[in-house]
Amino acid sequence: MELDNHYMSRALELAALAMGRTSPNPLVGCVIVKDGAIVGEGYHQKAGTPHAEVHALKAAGKHAQGATAYVTLEPCSHFGKTPPCADALIKAGIERVVVSMVDPNPLVGGQGVARLREAGIQVDVGLKEKEAKSLNKGFLKEIQTGLPFLLYKSALTLDGKIATESGDSKWITNEASRAYVHQLRNRFDVIMVGSETVLHDDPALNCRVDEGRDPVRLIVDGELKIPLQSAVLTSSCSAPCIIATSASAPLDKLNALQSIENVEVWKYDSPRYVPLRHLLGDLVKRGWNSVLLEGGGGLAGSLLHDQLIDEVEFIYAPKLIGGKGPSPLTGLNLPLMTQAIPLEFLEINGGTGDLRVRAKVNYSD
Amino acid sequence: MELDNHYMSRALELAALAMGRTSPNPLVGCVIVKDGAIVGEGYHQKAGTPHAEVHALKAAGKHAQGATAYVTLEPCSHFGKTPPCADALIKAGIERVVVSMVDPNPLVGGQGVARLREAGIQVDVGLKEKEAKSLNKGFLKEIQTGLPFLLYKSALTLDGKIATESGDSKWITNEASRAYVHQLRNRFDVIMVGSETVLHDDPALNCRVDEGRDPVRLIVDGELKIPLQSAVLTSSCSAPCIIATSASAPLDKLNALQSIENVEVWKYDSPRYVPLRHLLGDLVKRGWNSVLLEGGGGLAGSLLHDQLIDEVEFIYAPKLIGGKGPSPLTGLNLPLMTQAIPLEFLEINGGTGDLRVRAKVNYSD
Repeated sequence: MELDNHYMSRALELAALAMGRTSPNPLVGCVIVKDGAIVGEGYHQKAGTPHAEVHALKAAGKHAQGATAYVTLEPCSHFGKTPPCADALIKAGIERVVVSMVDPNPLVGGQGVARLREAGIQVDVGLKEKEAKSLNKGFLKEIQTGLPFLLYKSALTLDGKIATESGDSKWITNEASRAYVHQLRNRFDVIMVGSETVLHDDPALNCRVDEGRDPVRLIVDGELKIPLQSAVLTSSCSAPCIIATSASAPLDKLNALQSIENVEVWKYDSPRYVPLRHLLGDLVKRGWNSVLLEGGGGLAGSLLHDQLIDEVEFIYAPKLIGGKGPSPLTGLNLPLMTQAIPLEFLEINGGTGDLRVRAKVNYSD
Repeated sequence: MELDNHYMSRALELAALAMGRTSPNPLVGCVIVKDGAIVGEGYHQKAGTPHAEVHALKAAGKHAQGATAYVTLEPCSHFGKTPPCADALIKAGIERVVVSMVDPNPLVGGQGVARLREAGIQVDVGLKEKEAKSLNKGFLKEIQTGLPFLLYKSALTLDGKIATESGDSKWITNEASRAYVHQLRNRFDVIMVGSETVLHDDPALNCRVDEGRDPVRLIVDGELKIPLQSAVLTSSCSAPCIIATSASAPLDKLNALQSIENVEVWKYDSPRYVPLRHLLGDLVKRGWNSVLLEGGGGLAGSLLHDQLIDEVEFIYAPKLIGGKGPSPLTGLNLPLMTQAIPLEFLEINGGTGDLRVRAKVNYSD
């Protein structure tokens, strides 16, 4: 059991290497062990490329005969872009398969396990299931709701301000936290901000991490207020920049934006405001199932009101600024404390000088 | 050394039992150990009563002969309300004294240790000094500056609000946190609030803890706005209620307040505002050296501006409320993030459902 834990941890570690690169597919890692030694390992690296099991089996070669395979997600049993992994494991002579989580899709879940068992393979399911699910929040949310997993990240002073009363916000958190935000960007499919953030901070929203990749950038701008010179439009970036707008978008501005390389304008029929649930559903249709919301407080409030935020990560700097500057949720305004939206702390980490708090939003209805 | 640590921890534990009861004296604990067993222990319980060493020596009786004494503060060498403890230890035949911290008063510090050494006793100084100093923050601050140690406690939502935009604040934190605040009240000499807090929340500011004692209540009210029917004036409480006011105080209201049992009005010459540093100095003159500030954000901002707050304890509830409601430091308003007042995290504790963050204020000049 202790060894099983050890190998499944390694498989999860491998799976995590491809964070932000596999959507709409899940993250999957696989380790093949024989006679107490790892003889092959692998992970799913990108949608359309071989699955984790295939990489691991290839590395193991003939040593797969009689071995145990640790897989973070139930092996597939259907022909997709690649042939079924369950068959590949059977063919390679694997004797035991340890699966962390079954396929969450109710239409296919369990069939991979069933096929392995029919072939006489011992299958154990559920080891480190919580960790496997936590790794695939976007994939799970998409399957369960057709919407992406959405994390709202905000940086604030210990007294709860995301800017001074006069609007200054550079910088609140320390260098380690700012580097961490770039790591987050590297792991999410999409970064989302409101037009106010672009107007005020003019961020490039790229990912400055070694071997990082730029996420899709999504600007919610119901009236197309952002200037054509915004860094998000002009800076070199390998991923598209999407401007979501409403029926109130001025046509000439829309055309000008659309003519910029790498920029897409998504226009919705509603006046002034972008229908947020609809927009998020459209992201999923494009194959993106994880969204990092970086501000501002108005957009965050609207998303929270519509129950579209799954988790928040607030990074508090050990400093006090005071005044009546904005807080991270100005767009929400609940009149009574009993109406507050409850959270569940997932992680509290003061290890890098700032205080990082990750929490899950528990909508009450 | 490990045993020394163990006995000194016990002495510190004993000292802490009298928190909030010894001012202007320090908290002191003493353990007397002979042949690997504790033969006597004690702590200073109240100003004017016997010192820790006297209690411990009395308990040890003849076993003190040849024993080791662990004392959290250097034994006194002068005649105060009680005779010098250094002499008592010598007379009892103690062979070794382990002292955590020397007396911080530069005029007397070191003389107790010197007297013991002159008598041929081995004296070791500095064991768990940090803990001993942490226990006596009020005593140390008073000696060093003539001002009390001031902790600002605030309860806020994770998005940094101490009330909703419409002013509701009941309740933000959970029952465990609210019970903890009563424990804090039990340990501080004085609880301080601004008149706005009394007008808005009408708190009794008493201490509802088993075997607790009510702290002195201090209301800063430059224009005597608080109603005569306020709970803080009418609820039964064993400690005085002090109203600090300014030259702008209406005379009839001042007289009416002063006629209430247990109420004192401290009037300062300045117009409208109470001179806060002066006020805090006057608390020390009355023998109170620790102050718990419970709000509101205006008073806290002024105190922070005057560099009078030593530590903050922010208790964050896992909930989101949004809007433009107040934050804990509305009275401070620094225009640039680079001017933010730096803090140093002392404790981060998410163990009781809410998140408690204690931090030291590091004024930059």
